[in-house]
Amino acid sequence: MPASPVRKLVPFATEAKAKGIKVFHLNIGQPDIPTPQTALDAIKENDLKIYEYALSEGNIEYREALKTYYHSLGFTDLTTNNFIVTNGGSEALNFAISTLCDEGDEVIIPEPYYANYNGFTSTFNVNVVAIASSIETGFSLPPMEDFEKKITSKTKAIILCNPGNPTGYLYTKEELQKLAKIALKHDIVIISDEVYREYVYDGEKAVSILEFPELKDHAIVIDSESKRYSMCGARIGCLITRSKAIHQAAMLFAQARLSPVLLGQIAATAAHKDDQAYILSVREEYTKRRNLLVELLNAIPGVYCPKPKGAFYCVAQLPVDDTEEFAQWMLEHFEHNGETVMVAPAGGFYSDPELGKKQVRIAYVLNEEDLKRSVELLEKAISAYRQVKDL
Amino acid sequence: MPASPVRKLVPFATEAKAKGIKVFHLNIGQPDIPTPQTALDAIKENDLKIYEYALSEGNIEYREALKTYYHSLGFTDLTTNNFIVTNGGSEALNFAISTLCDEGDEVIIPEPYYANYNGFTSTFNVNVVAIASSIETGFSLPPMEDFEKKITSKTKAIILCNPGNPTGYLYTKEELQKLAKIALKHDIVIISDEVYREYVYDGEKAVSILEFPELKDHAIVIDSESKRYSMCGARIGCLITRSKAIHQAAMLFAQARLSPVLLGQIAATAAHKDDQAYILSVREEYTKRRNLLVELLNAIPGVYCPKPKGAFYCVAQLPVDDTEEFAQWMLEHFEHNGETVMVAPAGGFYSDPELGKKQVRIAYVLNEEDLKRSVELLEKAISAYRQVKDL
Repeated sequence: MPASPVRKLVPFATEAKAKGIKVFHLNIGQPDIPTPQTALDAIKENDLKIYEYALSEGNIEYREALKTYYHSLGFTDLTTNNFIVTNGGSEALNFAISTLCDEGDEVIIPEPYYANYNGFTSTFNVNVVAIASSIETGFSLPPMEDFEKKITSKTKAIILCNPGNPTGYLYTKEELQKLAKIALKHDIVIISDEVYREYVYDGEKAVSILEFPELKDHAIVIDSESKRYSMCGARIGCLITRSKAIHQAAMLFAQARLSPVLLGQIAATAAHKDDQAYILSVREEYTKRRNLLVELLNAIPGVYCPKPKGAFYCVAQLPVDDTEEFAQWMLEHFEHNGETVMVAPAGGFYSDPELGKKQVRIAYVLNEEDLKRSVELLEKAISAYRQVKDL
Repeated sequence: MPASPVRKLVPFATEAKAKGIKVFHLNIGQPDIPTPQTALDAIKENDLKIYEYALSEGNIEYREALKTYYHSLGFTDLTTNNFIVTNGGSEALNFAISTLCDEGDEVIIPEPYYANYNGFTSTFNVNVVAIASSIETGFSLPPMEDFEKKITSKTKAIILCNPGNPTGYLYTKEELQKLAKIALKHDIVIISDEVYREYVYDGEKAVSILEFPELKDHAIVIDSESKRYSMCGARIGCLITRSKAIHQAAMLFAQARLSPVLLGQIAATAAHKDDQAYILSVREEYTKRRNLLVELLNAIPGVYCPKPKGAFYCVAQLPVDDTEEFAQWMLEHFEHNGETVMVAPAGGFYSDPELGKKQVRIAYVLNEEDLKRSVELLEKAISAYRQVKDL
């Protein structure tokens, strides 16, 4: 399993900080947004005397909260038996892949895609077959024929991230409808990673794969409270499926690891109670940040950044030859008034790193002031780097 | 992945409870002992505003607490870099197996062994090669030649649970010394699951695989706070190794799942602070229960139970033909004054379930009064069952 390009940068960030340089982190998916107060209070006010194992599928109180939430989304057929609570969305993905795939099997993923998908697939020696989408078209899906061309007898699933990390791309109902047909025709499962569902902007709405009842036995949703409630460290996610066979198979993996985390379920159950006010205010905050960030980025000469419709990332093309080298250079050799910036080189989000060689992923998980300063630093760094490199 | 015999019994227990019958659970590893008050307080008094991702390898405060604890055990060469914090001992085992083994590889495990080892190995299509130990010799290890006979070019590891679940067996220094020699000779790794280390009785002490410096590159310890501090639901374990190569490889799996749980690390860090008083009092409690349980069990005609030296389980031989059937019968057809008992059939702890067909695992995680009543129920049930079955 290869280390990601961002991981390779970590020692350089550590070294910069050791030299007293302040590093603005545009590279990470850890929001600066506070966890809902109801969740924090539920943890502080819990009166447990023993932190016991939770049920392997998750405790009933939390699965009831999930059921209520999914009913509010319109999926009123779901019962508490459709959910398996996991240690973060990561474990849900792990269960999904190990349930569907054997060694040597293939999953199709539109690229650029969340780099950790490589980790989950390579753990089980499952091969990723990438479908290219490009920055020029705002990362919209390629024609459906491209998907069909990639399907072989070893294809077990298509993985989507909707809205997408790293692109912020939002799949249309029509795109998903076409994918649903392909999935049914070839008897493969759509794994839809919908952990950023809440953070979609401009009045648009994410379309869940659950909206296609015909995919009853061909759909798995990956969900997580990490981004919804800014509680990444609580490690609470879930796997949702209407398929009894998939649920049963995934339960064996859930039982093997005994129990999802108990305290995180208490925090998440509480958070779901004051859902709407919190979500609305956070969505408003991300909207402001996105608007600011994309405007500032596109104002830098030579930079191009399509406006993302969801999640809290964007992918920007920079006027440099190699963003991995450039990102490292910013940490090693650049500073302005004692400050620099760290970005995620986008090569790690492509099956062929060459495709993302001029791109970076930027997360808007900093407040507006810090975002402004970060882009200012980025602009100065690009200019300085281009001079050094004689670009 | 097969469902365990205990899981198969769960619906019958649920049904018994629905009929108003009280079920004493001797089948589970969830202690009734309270979590240390310092841990509960640390959670209630935490003033975090955001539950952020922890470092993939675990936050430094907790790894410092682990280091201090391991130094107190005498392993003063360990630094915070020797630990990878995991979501329970389960995840540490997962990382260990996926780090060492490819599909089709083999691990040797003395049986009876912790049934979930099957789950972790079968996830990666790794084959378990069992070494028989028997109830007649108190589950002591077979001659070392038996191990060597089982080693092939595909053997990557030997997994030990010390003290053992389900047997309570405690490996002697001499046994481990011999195994160490074999591991070095054949270049295989010993994975030593030491999560019950604290609960060893009669003044004996568990020997850690870390006591063999020559195994520097050939040893992994699996540890967990679940049993030590009765916080199974906190999901905090760790993987410990002196091998840089193993540590680096395991870190890739740790990074793929991003982060171990944050709140559990806070609880465990606090628990380590008032370690000794808590551990001593819990050890005393388990000692009393073990003495009571083993004495009562051996007093039942036809029952044989060697006295375990550690952990909080014992394996007992019963005068019935099939404990899986018997355990189900106790839930379906037996009650005395509205009460019955659930035990874990031992077949699931053997590679060949036939070997454990007359044995059960009993956990002494109930208080003395409940234990007494449970054994009384077991005795009455055995007698009734033998009549019904004409044994």
